[in-house]
Amino acid sequence: MKQVYFDNAATTQVKDEVIEAMTNSLKDNYGNASSTHSFGRSSKSLIENIRKDIASYFNVSAGEIVFTSGGTEADNLVLRSAVRDLGIEQIITSKIEHHAILHTAEQLENEYDVSISYVNIDANGLIDFNHLEQLLKNSNKALVSLMHVNNEIGNLLDIKKTATLCKEHGALFHSDTVQSVGHYKLDLQEIPIDFFAASAHKFHGPKGVGFCFIRKNSGLKPLIFGGEQERGFRAGTESVHNIVGLGASLKLSYTNLKEESTYVKGLKTYFISKISNELPEVAFNGCSGDLKQSTYTLVNMRLPVSEEKSAMLLFQLDLKGIACSKGSACQSGATSSSHVLSQILSTEELKKPSVRFSFSIYNTKDDIDYLVEVLKELLSN
Amino acid sequence: MKQVYFDNAATTQVKDEVIEAMTNSLKDNYGNASSTHSFGRSSKSLIENIRKDIASYFNVSAGEIVFTSGGTEADNLVLRSAVRDLGIEQIITSKIEHHAILHTAEQLENEYDVSISYVNIDANGLIDFNHLEQLLKNSNKALVSLMHVNNEIGNLLDIKKTATLCKEHGALFHSDTVQSVGHYKLDLQEIPIDFFAASAHKFHGPKGVGFCFIRKNSGLKPLIFGGEQERGFRAGTESVHNIVGLGASLKLSYTNLKEESTYVKGLKTYFISKISNELPEVAFNGCSGDLKQSTYTLVNMRLPVSEEKSAMLLFQLDLKGIACSKGSACQSGATSSSHVLSQILSTEELKKPSVRFSFSIYNTKDDIDYLVEVLKELLSN
Repeated sequence: MKQVYFDNAATTQVKDEVIEAMTNSLKDNYGNASSTHSFGRSSKSLIENIRKDIASYFNVSAGEIVFTSGGTEADNLVLRSAVRDLGIEQIITSKIEHHAILHTAEQLENEYDVSISYVNIDANGLIDFNHLEQLLKNSNKALVSLMHVNNEIGNLLDIKKTATLCKEHGALFHSDTVQSVGHYKLDLQEIPIDFFAASAHKFHGPKGVGFCFIRKNSGLKPLIFGGEQERGFRAGTESVHNIVGLGASLKLSYTNLKEESTYVKGLKTYFISKISNELPEVAFNGCSGDLKQSTYTLVNMRLPVSEEKSAMLLFQLDLKGIACSKGSACQSGATSSSHVLSQILSTEELKKPSVRFSFSIYNTKDDIDYLVEVLKELLSN
Repeated sequence: MKQVYFDNAATTQVKDEVIEAMTNSLKDNYGNASSTHSFGRSSKSLIENIRKDIASYFNVSAGEIVFTSGGTEADNLVLRSAVRDLGIEQIITSKIEHHAILHTAEQLENEYDVSISYVNIDANGLIDFNHLEQLLKNSNKALVSLMHVNNEIGNLLDIKKTATLCKEHGALFHSDTVQSVGHYKLDLQEIPIDFFAASAHKFHGPKGVGFCFIRKNSGLKPLIFGGEQERGFRAGTESVHNIVGLGASLKLSYTNLKEESTYVKGLKTYFISKISNELPEVAFNGCSGDLKQSTYTLVNMRLPVSEEKSAMLLFQLDLKGIACSKGSACQSGATSSSHVLSQILSTEELKKPSVRFSFSIYNTKDDIDYLVEVLKELLSN
């Protein structure tokens, strides 16, 4: 059966070159990067060269890049330490952030004397900058955490505007950039951001590794204590092969960014136009139908299906070999709506099933033709 | 030049079968284990089968095994949550624990109303069980954290006796078993331990993955918040290939435990006897010269070298292609002593350089002959 993977916002296929680099590293660089002998130095040197490469993509210094076990850990590191060590008293975020932000903020609210304020969003999930400014004006010791690309509806945040606004009001700014790093260039000499989090498996790298940008002299302290790895920011033996995979995948992503993004954007454009022509009853959630205001990597659509059919939809797509996901990353296949969509859709709209299709360089127009055929068949029954 | 790796307590060479399993998984199982489609289910199924396998080695249930990014994260998870969520008011540990325990406990002491008590040890680093019992008698809401195998001097803890004593006094017991899992069998139906931490790269698996045993209904909560992975114990997309590597390496370790441990024990026995015969001025630190009271995987020796020569010793060994480490995992090559040795050696003894040699199945008697020759040469100059 034809298998089509349209869930690239959940995770991506690892590139062959990345697998090869990781396999070689597993064979050849098994030294502990903290060891002073030649086996250790060889691992250390690999890691530090990758750190320099990564820093160069963002126009920051190598000491500002801290490797973690992924984006979630990086988000936790920033939020927890900001509250515990920097005296943050208010977290300003939105209700459509990833759970790595929302659940962490809620946990910190339970543990510390910190309050959470949610910035208003409109029916498309766009941030109300006037409200953000108002919150900032009334704030004291605030950390703003807003994601660059929303993982469910693809909305793009004006990250430079947000960072500048935060800076003007003396607030720290963190961004969960898990869906944008590797897909968008971020020049931190232009964007006065304090922290951001990235994850390799969102750009054809391995799962279980990511990094955190921590601006120099931030005062942040570790989430995980122990050895002096990562210049004291993150204890634990470095996952050399995973960092090699992260480095290789990010290098490939940024080296080929123009052609790869053009290709994937072409797929999304083709998909939107085909859907609009052949299934005009389909509605796009958030800004995902608008390429100017959303990432080129995903769409989130509401399908004209009755409630009783709705529950079976993902299952039927799966039977047809199509991998995609509901608005939320649910494990159970239950029909409850995502926390993101429930913020922007009406009760009536939430009754219709919403599905996220996310694209990568490994998809083709043929895949999209197949998907649209399947959708037409399912919707006509 | 001959290259000999005698730093297996720092990290181990990854077995070929493990690399192969990981490479295949990187190619074939790129689905996100939280996704409900076939790509996701295939990753989920891999992970859950490994969890069951691991649980079976320790005679526990699968739900009690939580995958982490390594031993340090697992230690942090247990200690932080025990203090924050279980109301632990006293951490009882020893001054020769790994920094993942000591620095985490110190951090928690700064953050919470918890005190740290250090159990007495003798000149060989052995725990004073009378003192431990006395501490437990006077304790209230205590967590005991004592490692099974000391990573620097190899001392073996009577883990069953310790666990039983803790249970008798109503204290929780955690053990950093990073140096023992994969090298010793632990039957948790016999040992009433509450938590333990393990790391794959200590038994020929990949770096950046480990697991935590958390006894059922412990009440422990996450260190890293976000998604519902690991049944809510640990947020973040599962590192499928790393868990595959962990599973493969632990399976190989326990399947071949008898022959592998016999082989490595043979190396240590041979090394001790050769050193005793040919360099009788060498002294063994802790219990590492005694196979009954220390792990078969390492020795820690004090060399009869003048202070001025001492600083150059590791460097000279490295020049001869021999990878080993000082008592401490130092990054700088400085001559300051380890926190473990400084607890058990006299000021005079600390002036002599101490070196840890740790063995694996990839070492041979030839390697040891070469090492002893080099040592004789260095010590005679």
